[in-house]
Amino acid sequence: MESTITRAIDAHITANLDRHLSELSTLCAQPSVSARGEGNRDCAALVEALYRDYGFRTRMIETGGQPVVVAHLEGASPRRLLCYNHYDVQPPEPLELWTTPPYTPTVRDGALYARGSRDDKGEIVCRLAAIDAVRAACGGTLPCSIVMVTEGEEEIGSPHMKAFVQEHLDLLRCDGAIWEEGGTDESGRHRMALGGRGILAVELSVEVMDRDAHSGGGHLLPNAAWRLVRALNTLKDANERILIEGFYEQARGPSPLDTTLIAGQPDPTEALRAETGVRSFLNGMTGGALNAAVFNPTCTIEGITTGYQGAGFKTVIPARASAKLDFRLVMSQDPEDVFRKLRRHLDAQGFDDVNVEWLGAMWPWKAEPDHPLVALAAATGEAVYGKPASLIPTTGGSSPVYAFARPLGIPVITAGIGNMRNRQHAPDEHVRIDDFVNGTRHVARIIEGFARALEAPRGAPAS
Amino acid sequence: MESTITRAIDAHITANLDRHLSELSTLCAQPSVSARGEGNRDCAALVEALYRDYGFRTRMIETGGQPVVVAHLEGASPRRLLCYNHYDVQPPEPLELWTTPPYTPTVRDGALYARGSRDDKGEIVCRLAAIDAVRAACGGTLPCSIVMVTEGEEEIGSPHMKAFVQEHLDLLRCDGAIWEEGGTDESGRHRMALGGRGILAVELSVEVMDRDAHSGGGHLLPNAAWRLVRALNTLKDANERILIEGFYEQARGPSPLDTTLIAGQPDPTEALRAETGVRSFLNGMTGGALNAAVFNPTCTIEGITTGYQGAGFKTVIPARASAKLDFRLVMSQDPEDVFRKLRRHLDAQGFDDVNVEWLGAMWPWKAEPDHPLVALAAATGEAVYGKPASLIPTTGGSSPVYAFARPLGIPVITAGIGNMRNRQHAPDEHVRIDDFVNGTRHVARIIEGFARALEAPRGAPAS
Repeated sequence: MESTITRAIDAHITANLDRHLSELSTLCAQPSVSARGEGNRDCAALVEALYRDYGFRTRMIETGGQPVVVAHLEGASPRRLLCYNHYDVQPPEPLELWTTPPYTPTVRDGALYARGSRDDKGEIVCRLAAIDAVRAACGGTLPCSIVMVTEGEEEIGSPHMKAFVQEHLDLLRCDGAIWEEGGTDESGRHRMALGGRGILAVELSVEVMDRDAHSGGGHLLPNAAWRLVRALNTLKDANERILIEGFYEQARGPSPLDTTLIAGQPDPTEALRAETGVRSFLNGMTGGALNAAVFNPTCTIEGITTGYQGAGFKTVIPARASAKLDFRLVMSQDPEDVFRKLRRHLDAQGFDDVNVEWLGAMWPWKAEPDHPLVALAAATGEAVYGKPASLIPTTGGSSPVYAFARPLGIPVITAGIGNMRNRQHAPDEHVRIDDFVNGTRHVARIIEGFARALEAPRGAPAS
Repeated sequence: MESTITRAIDAHITANLDRHLSELSTLCAQPSVSARGEGNRDCAALVEALYRDYGFRTRMIETGGQPVVVAHLEGASPRRLLCYNHYDVQPPEPLELWTTPPYTPTVRDGALYARGSRDDKGEIVCRLAAIDAVRAACGGTLPCSIVMVTEGEEEIGSPHMKAFVQEHLDLLRCDGAIWEEGGTDESGRHRMALGGRGILAVELSVEVMDRDAHSGGGHLLPNAAWRLVRALNTLKDANERILIEGFYEQARGPSPLDTTLIAGQPDPTEALRAETGVRSFLNGMTGGALNAAVFNPTCTIEGITTGYQGAGFKTVIPARASAKLDFRLVMSQDPEDVFRKLRRHLDAQGFDDVNVEWLGAMWPWKAEPDHPLVALAAATGEAVYGKPASLIPTTGGSSPVYAFARPLGIPVITAGIGNMRNRQHAPDEHVRIDDFVNGTRHVARIIEGFARALEAPRGAPAS
């Protein structure tokens, strides 16, 4: 059922689309690679200026790492919705696999291609476009208040977000939050994650000599590459079971409701094949088993570097070798506990010469599915996309939701512009323009109904 | 006992040292990295011009890869000594570990530092300095004939040398050869290798997706890095025993004479510690066991590349992973046979998705210790260094000696400017100037006595 207000919202979004895509292109043309601190502060300044253009009061807050942009806009109700986003992006490499350069936003075939176009600069502009449309449709005043929190270190694990929230509880006080990732699944349904896995990122490194040596000494000199390969091989068995003692101790399995929700998810096989070109899935899994596997924690090698890697060959024995790993953790595993167990495991296996460096961590989180904000997001998602929303008990990824949800005591929902084929973190990242419009319509409906939903008696319809 | 001729030789070497070091610096300033074809032809032209300066007739011969410089100089006797050298060098990386840049030859603390200063441009200039000195001391005519064979692909396994020798047997006809590597051991004795190991260099690679994926999918997507780690781990046990079926079938152990010669070698422990900074040797070996281990074939990981290797971390699952390996082979292992067995092993272990690419190979070789040229080299080595020569049944390294020794039916000996601490193949490669002088004196004595030694009745003294 379309109201006059939602028709006005949708018309405003369409009428202002070119302006919003231009704002998005400006953000995407600015590199902001948090992994190497490349352009982040310039990008933060662009984001702050954009928020001011939309009438926000802004503050640029230092964290010890990249700054956080906090922006407030007061509405008719003091009920406040927090929008969490991030202005940093993943490194664009390998550059040669991009069809057009990562920092030259390019529209083709109905999509805008650029690093950050979907993750997460597209979502930033989506929120602004939605706020602008709701304000215009509601006579110039938003029906609720908004606080935008936009950080610059999400892609390196949000190392400062936990402390940042603790230190700024007053500034961030709100009644619910809309997260940075959102959009539709392969069947075009609004896909909403109610939880996420934790992550522990580490670097394993070993040095066996002061410098590389001639491989003619391979019968007597130690080899850091072999040492690392052997250490890595102790971490996981051939069936992907992690062999670190006590690793699974605190891992909770899915609840009955989780299992029901997971069973209702579409088969991801073809979408994953299209996105990655994967030949065969781990452990020969197919169909629904691929969805259910998200309740398993993981141990991923992100990269290995050692010895000679150029053309041809070089007859050397590497003195040093290192591997970056991440562990995705399920409720209620604790990255600090896993880090200690990893160290103990390597020591117990005779690899006390292998150094373990902590690179970053996030904790797992989970939202309650019966909160009015969850219901509002699901109902408006169904209104926009014409199909029931898909509720995901937990995603495979990690996010700093945990850092907000617990101290602020709020539910966190998702809605946005993604469609599972956006190649985020990979070459040719893009956002489809249709998805941008629909995601913005969805977020606008949530903003429009937010205060009303929270003020309705629990269990009553929101309007 | 010093003769007038050897005194004249030594005086000539000393008087012309600056000129020879200048020639060496010119060669070292010219990059010639065969692993990536960087500057090789320019370096070949410099070498050819230098040989002409010394009165050689030269030919630049194409091989399909880098050209070979062949240079002839006729002497009083038709007995001809072949000098094998190479003008190519190893890649200079990692550049940041060089005290002075690799292509800026710099003299400090009695040594000349540059990539190639020892391996093998220093040996090229040593041969020319020796020839010049002997010619001057013998009234302008060498007592034997010389053929210089200087190739440009030794550091990538001399892929064309075997065919080159077969195709140019007439041009290369000779009565013995002096090889590119030579010099003294840690105790200052002339160290002469009578054999070398073979080598098989391969690249293992695996691709499990078309592109890297987000590590949030680590519970269902395959990981090329893990796949490679597991494949590598099947190749060798914790005690360095190679697990490829049939790998040791054709490996001959040392002869009783080999064992005697090895037992007479100095303990290499401290020299190796000084050269590499090694913490502990493979399998906890110490002392003489380190020398005897050269009769074991090896499997060395030269390098691994996969996934993200920059600063911080990147939450990706690598689609591709590869490792460069070399196997050092003992008499009478055959690289072609080992390559086939490696493929069969990976297939049998379930790794038929791991590709094996042949990068290069050399065969093991061995010379007879009772040939007059071996005796001449040992006797003149003792004369120059004042200590008995150390005869090594086999080195740990590999060389294209095999490609010359068998088809030409010649003994191959070593003498030269190395001292085991030259950091060849590593940053800060250098040659000590004292070693350059002594190596040149030694080579000059071999050239001076060569024709006489070969014409003496077998078993009779050479002079």
